[in-house]
Amino acid sequence: MRTIDWDDGAVCIIDQTLLPQECTTLVIRSVDDLVTQIQRLAVRGAMALGVAGALGVALAASQASKGGSDVSAAVESAAAKLRAARPTAVNLSWGVNTVVATHTSGGDIADIVAAAVDVLEQDVRANRELSRRGAELLSGKRRILTHCNTGALAGVECGTALGVIDAINADRPLDLVLVCETRPLLQGSRLTAWELGRSGIPHRVIVDSAAAGLILSGEVDAVVVGADRITTDGDVINKVGTVGHALAAARAGIPFLVAAPESTIDPGTAAGADVPIERRDELEVLEIAGTRMAPTTSRGLNPAFDVTPADLVTAIVTESRAITEWPIPTLDPSAHRSSDAGPAQHPRSTS
Amino acid sequence: MRTIDWDDGAVCIIDQTLLPQECTTLVIRSVDDLVTQIQRLAVRGAMALGVAGALGVALAASQASKGGSDVSAAVESAAAKLRAARPTAVNLSWGVNTVVATHTSGGDIADIVAAAVDVLEQDVRANRELSRRGAELLSGKRRILTHCNTGALAGVECGTALGVIDAINADRPLDLVLVCETRPLLQGSRLTAWELGRSGIPHRVIVDSAAAGLILSGEVDAVVVGADRITTDGDVINKVGTVGHALAAARAGIPFLVAAPESTIDPGTAAGADVPIERRDELEVLEIAGTRMAPTTSRGLNPAFDVTPADLVTAIVTESRAITEWPIPTLDPSAHRSSDAGPAQHPRSTS
Repeated sequence: MRTIDWDDGAVCIIDQTLLPQECTTLVIRSVDDLVTQIQRLAVRGAMALGVAGALGVALAASQASKGGSDVSAAVESAAAKLRAARPTAVNLSWGVNTVVATHTSGGDIADIVAAAVDVLEQDVRANRELSRRGAELLSGKRRILTHCNTGALAGVECGTALGVIDAINADRPLDLVLVCETRPLLQGSRLTAWELGRSGIPHRVIVDSAAAGLILSGEVDAVVVGADRITTDGDVINKVGTVGHALAAARAGIPFLVAAPESTIDPGTAAGADVPIERRDELEVLEIAGTRMAPTTSRGLNPAFDVTPADLVTAIVTESRAITEWPIPTLDPSAHRSSDAGPAQHPRSTS
Repeated sequence: MRTIDWDDGAVCIIDQTLLPQECTTLVIRSVDDLVTQIQRLAVRGAMALGVAGALGVALAASQASKGGSDVSAAVESAAAKLRAARPTAVNLSWGVNTVVATHTSGGDIADIVAAAVDVLEQDVRANRELSRRGAELLSGKRRILTHCNTGALAGVECGTALGVIDAINADRPLDLVLVCETRPLLQGSRLTAWELGRSGIPHRVIVDSAAAGLILSGEVDAVVVGADRITTDGDVINKVGTVGHALAAARAGIPFLVAAPESTIDPGTAAGADVPIERRDELEVLEIAGTRMAPTTSRGLNPAFDVTPADLVTAIVTESRAITEWPIPTLDPSAHRSSDAGPAQHPRSTS
């Protein structure tokens, strides 16, 4: 399964707005339609949006070429529309710019399509590599707890933390994955549970606050999560709730593994305390599925992320290495990069 | 506000099924009606159910006496119906039995009503006393985090943890109470937020998993929770999610206070690990407000409580003392009991 793919001149995406009830693939043949699907969140997640931007430019160029119209004008127009689709999604612009650069440096249609597909393949390779590395570290662990959605649905084909879980399970079937539902938006119960079900991996959905008790009572062998940003000190900014699992894992003496591409490491930020934590709409807390839960006079507070201090992290696995010392050593690309898996060049971003 | 009260021969209860949308008081004049209201959870919570059992027997005796019918037969019939209303609620039977004993030992109608009202008043006094004691320990703390509902709605007039919060606020207005929504049943966002709003205390509802990050980033001065059972080693069994807050409070170096009547301490159990943790219906996790969130093929796991190890607890306040050493010293009633506040004699139970 790929959440987004290039198929003979069309962009195919799984419509995530219908999950987990329905799994429908949309075949998109115009940039305007792609922009619409991006805006209605049919495709979402930093990595997938980068790919959508890249493939969108290739789509426009390819159609202009077939129709005999001006490829440069088509590329320029598509790039502007795609960048504006979700202006704060830095990966989207990055994916667009990567393919536009191939065009402006003289690449032909074949080069443009190849550049776009390469963005996609780089993402797949990087996540496959970091998943394999994480699975090696956790081999023998049979009961894993995870948080939020870090699977194919957050990327292209292979997830990060859920990629690690898939890779362990491929080696030897897991006994159980505990899936934190991940309030307020329930990416765990809606998306991660769906992906695990599709992979046939035994799993149970829990309320987020049940994690600590289950970890402390010995029912979990390891915790694996993704990351939205990692500071050079090794502090991990990830979906709200992550640090609670890290505290429990540390007390229980089980591994707390972070799985994320190298691009997640922010060379410009040393400590987690320096990262402003986005506070989202309080209605996400006060309402569930459109039903008001709290009194109408009560207010909410809705931090989207939290900071896990590096000392609670057992290891960070990327496509290039397993990091276990803080501050994070500077990566020497020639020494660490695996032979065929160049690191994904996505800029860091939040999901 | 009393969630349950005796008013001139009738039992008055706040219908908790309508909260937080409506606050309606039901005036109950028959045991059959009271049984119905208990069964539909219009009145709930261990302490309130004990009071309901006691007042129910007084109601039956009082009406038989007025109507000139057999008081003994009425008491016997009412006791059987009330005990069967929620057979696993040990407090309910205890409240019934307390008042039946007054009758069988020869008490008249006035004695029976007095015994029932005394059960109610004992509960009010005990919670008022432990709340005052908790507020003394936390004086100066202006931003408090709490979990679940431990207010008047869980008792009669004065809560436990929320009683402490009320008492601090009465002394000097609090800056903020952070209310964990308390998945899966949302007692925090539905009930605690409503009580705080009624008391005019500034509060914000958060998802449970936001607590650890907010505590670690210095936005909380103290955590206060109730308890369903406390072992003699000082381990605290409370609503699922509690231990996560305790881990974060310990790391942040802020007080983690447990507020509960002496009757919560279980002399028969030494360690939290010896307490079986009830696992409730997994649909509570998989559905919210009747809407299925997880895939229909996914299963849930729903522990109702967790265990907070004593070393994470700063103090336990009861109506008789502040406990700060483990194992918990045996209570010498003559030395510790405050002059007018005898400890509530409720048996321990789960809410």
